[in-house]
Amino acid sequence: MRSVILVQNRIMTSTTLIDYMTTLGQQARAASAQMAKSETAQKNRALLATAAAVLEMQESLLAANQADLDAGRAKGLSAALLDRLELTPARIAAMVVGLEQVAALPDPIGSISELDYRPSGIQIGKMRVPLGVIGIIYESRPNVTIEAASLCLKSGNAVILRGGSEAIRSNAALALCIQQGLRASGLPETAVQVVATTDRAAVHQLITMPEYVDVIVPRGGKGLIARVSADARVPVIKHLDGNCHVYIDVNADPEKAVRIAINAKTRRYGVCNALETLLLEATQANALLPELKRQFDAKGVELRGCEQTQAIIDCSAATQEDWATEYLAPILAIKVVANLDQAIDHINMYGSHHTDSIVTENYSSGRRFLREVDSASVMINASTAFADGFEYGLGAEIGISTDKIHARGPVGLVGLTSQKYIVLGDGQIRES
Amino acid sequence: MRSVILVQNRIMTSTTLIDYMTTLGQQARAASAQMAKSETAQKNRALLATAAAVLEMQESLLAANQADLDAGRAKGLSAALLDRLELTPARIAAMVVGLEQVAALPDPIGSISELDYRPSGIQIGKMRVPLGVIGIIYESRPNVTIEAASLCLKSGNAVILRGGSEAIRSNAALALCIQQGLRASGLPETAVQVVATTDRAAVHQLITMPEYVDVIVPRGGKGLIARVSADARVPVIKHLDGNCHVYIDVNADPEKAVRIAINAKTRRYGVCNALETLLLEATQANALLPELKRQFDAKGVELRGCEQTQAIIDCSAATQEDWATEYLAPILAIKVVANLDQAIDHINMYGSHHTDSIVTENYSSGRRFLREVDSASVMINASTAFADGFEYGLGAEIGISTDKIHARGPVGLVGLTSQKYIVLGDGQIRES
Repeated sequence: MRSVILVQNRIMTSTTLIDYMTTLGQQARAASAQMAKSETAQKNRALLATAAAVLEMQESLLAANQADLDAGRAKGLSAALLDRLELTPARIAAMVVGLEQVAALPDPIGSISELDYRPSGIQIGKMRVPLGVIGIIYESRPNVTIEAASLCLKSGNAVILRGGSEAIRSNAALALCIQQGLRASGLPETAVQVVATTDRAAVHQLITMPEYVDVIVPRGGKGLIARVSADARVPVIKHLDGNCHVYIDVNADPEKAVRIAINAKTRRYGVCNALETLLLEATQANALLPELKRQFDAKGVELRGCEQTQAIIDCSAATQEDWATEYLAPILAIKVVANLDQAIDHINMYGSHHTDSIVTENYSSGRRFLREVDSASVMINASTAFADGFEYGLGAEIGISTDKIHARGPVGLVGLTSQKYIVLGDGQIRES
Repeated sequence: MRSVILVQNRIMTSTTLIDYMTTLGQQARAASAQMAKSETAQKNRALLATAAAVLEMQESLLAANQADLDAGRAKGLSAALLDRLELTPARIAAMVVGLEQVAALPDPIGSISELDYRPSGIQIGKMRVPLGVIGIIYESRPNVTIEAASLCLKSGNAVILRGGSEAIRSNAALALCIQQGLRASGLPETAVQVVATTDRAAVHQLITMPEYVDVIVPRGGKGLIARVSADARVPVIKHLDGNCHVYIDVNADPEKAVRIAINAKTRRYGVCNALETLLLEATQANALLPELKRQFDAKGVELRGCEQTQAIIDCSAATQEDWATEYLAPILAIKVVANLDQAIDHINMYGSHHTDSIVTENYSSGRRFLREVDSASVMINASTAFADGFEYGLGAEIGISTDKIHARGPVGLVGLTSQKYIVLGDGQIRES
C-alpha cells in the first residue's frame, strides 16, 4: 500500500492515473468499513499518536516544507502564497494542539436519539453514522492536511486528500505522520491517503467516482469551488462567497449598532464572515453615519455609499456591482433603506446566504429578520464575526457551507455524519 | 401565469423550451420566498381548499384521466401501466384523505432547537427552514402530483412537477385543483407548477438549473433514477433498489424467525422493503428451512438456495447474481452462513443499503448488527416491511432515500427542510 501512496509527482499516463485513483478509492472504501466500527478510544489514540509523530518528525517536516518553499520561489509564487505554504515550529505546535482538541471532542458516531415506540409496538430511533469516504480538495496551506484528516478520522470516515501541487512534499510528509498514528492504534493506514500526483486530472477522477467517494469538500478560492461543483458526480459540501450584511434598524441601540458594524468589518478583512455591505434605516443613517465614518476612516476603510449615504457623509459612489461584491478588503458598501422590508429584500437579492445580522431592540423586527433572511446564519445584535465553528461550539470546522442540502453554516464533526434508522422489535410483523 | 402553465404538450423549439423552463424556475424561485414565510394556518387552508377543489372537479379530473387512458391504450401501454394511470372515485377519495392528513401534520418550519448560550454570551440555535424549490420527476401514477405537491407545500417549498407523459392531462387537471387551493388561501399559484410539455429535454433542463432548483426527487424505476442522477447539476434525493435481508442468528427465537421471514417476503412482492435474500446461521438452517419451505411453497414463492441450502431442502441453485438482485417478485434467495460476521459481510457487499433485519435474542449480536450493517434502516426482531414513512411516524413520505447525504431512509416533511443557525446577542462583538 505504501508504495502506491509514495508515487509522488511521477508523470502518469491517463490509464495509470485512473488505475491509481481507483486504487485509492478502493482502499478508502475498504478502510471506511473499519473506521465506521472503530471505537472512540481507538480513534483518539490515533489522533494523539499522530500528534506525537508530528513532533517527532518535525525536522523532516520542515525539510520537506523547505523543498516546497524553494520550488515555490523558483516558480515565482507570491509572498502571500509562500507565507501560506510555510510550516514553522509555531505552526507545527498549533497542529499538535489541534489534534489534541479533536481527540478531546465528543464522538458523534453511534449516538442514538429519538428512540420512540410506535403504535405497531416497534421502537424507532436514529443512529449517527459516518458518511463513508470523504474527498478534500484544498489549496496551499499544508496544515489543512492535519485539520481535515483529524476531523474525518474522528467522525469515523476514510478520507482522500488532494492538496495544492506547491505543497505536495509537505503534505506527503504530514501523511506519513498520520499513517504512523493510524498504525500505532491498529486502524487502517489507508483511512487517510494523500493523492501523490500533481496531475490536475486526478481531481477530475476524485470527484467523479461516486462508487468510492461519498462527498467532496473543496476548501479554497471561489474558482476552485466553482470548478469542482460544475464537474462533480459526487455531492459537494461547498462554501462559496461570504457577502455579509449588518442592518441597523430604526429601533437599534446606537451604541450597539456602531460597535457591531465596526467589529464586523474591521476585525479581519480577508475572512468570509466579514461585513461587506452596511444597511441603515434612514433616521439611523442621519444619526450614525458621521460617527461610523470617523471610526472607519481611522482604520483606513474605504466607504462606497448610495446617493442617500453620499448626502450625509463624504464617500465614493457605490454601483450595483458593489452590492454583490465580497471585497475581502478594507472596503465597505453602505446603503440607506426605508425599512425592514427593504433591508430583507436587499439581503436576499444581493447577499450570498452566508451570515447577516440585524441591530434592533424591536421584538417583531428581530423575529421577522430571523425567519425571512435566507442565510446560513442570521443574527440579532451580534457581530457577523461570530459565524465560525469554534464560536458556535462545534469544536472545529471543516468549512462553512452556503448550501442548504445536508449541512448549512459551519460544518463540524456532525456535518461529516449521517443518521440511519434503527428499529427494535419483539417479533412484530406488518399485517396490512 | 396560467397561460404558461397550460402550454400543455405543444411542440417547442429548444430555445422556447429553455425559455419555458427558465420561466417556471424563476416563478418557482419567487414563489419560494413567499412560501418560506407563510403561516402554518395559511398552508393548511391551501391543502384543505385543494381537497375541496379535487372533489368539486371530480368530473373533469375523470374526463382528463379518461383521455390519458384512451391515448395510453392507443399507444399500447400494458395493463399494469394503465392500472397505475387510472383515476377512480376511490382513488380520488384517497387523495382527499391524503391532503387532510398532510394538513393535520405538525408544521416543521420555523421550529427552533438547541438554543444554547456560548462563553462569548451569544446564544446559538438552529431554525428549521424550507429547502426552497424542489423538482419532482415521476412516472405514471397521477396521484403523486397531489402527494408530492402537498408535502412540498406543507414544508414551505415551491415545487416543479414533471410527471409521466402518459398522465399529462390528468396531472394538468390536478394542478388546476392545487392552484385553486393556493389562490383561495392567498398563496402564490406558482408555488406548484406542472411541466406542461412531454418533451424529454424538459427533464434535462429541470435538473441542470441550480440557480432555480435546490433539490431533485426522482420517483420511479431504477432507470429513471440512474438517468437523473447521472445528468443532474442539482442535488438529488434518490432511492435506488431495495435488496433487503433478514438474518436468522444462532440465537434467534425460531417462532419469531419464521414469522418475520414469511411476512417480510410475502406481505407484498413489488415493494422496496420486501425481503430478497434470507440468511440463516447453519444450525438454524437445519432446524427452520423445512418449515420455511412449506410456508413459502404454500404461497407460491420460488426458492433459490446456496449449496448448503440445497442439501437441506429441495430448491434451485442461487448464483452470484441472485445475491445482488432485487426480485420484486415471489422469488427468494437463501444462503447459509457460519456466523454473524459472514452475515454482515454478505449484507454490506451485496445489499443495497436499504433495510436489513436480524432475528436474535443475543444482546451483543443485535448491538453489532445495528452498528455494523451500513443500511438506511437496520432492525432487530422486526419485519423489513416496517420500513415506511407512515410506520416510522413521519406521517407521509416523498420517498425512501438510499443516499447518506442530507436524508437517509424514509423522507417525510423534515427531509424537505434544512436548518439555519440563529444567533441572539446583546451587542456582542468578537475580540480576537
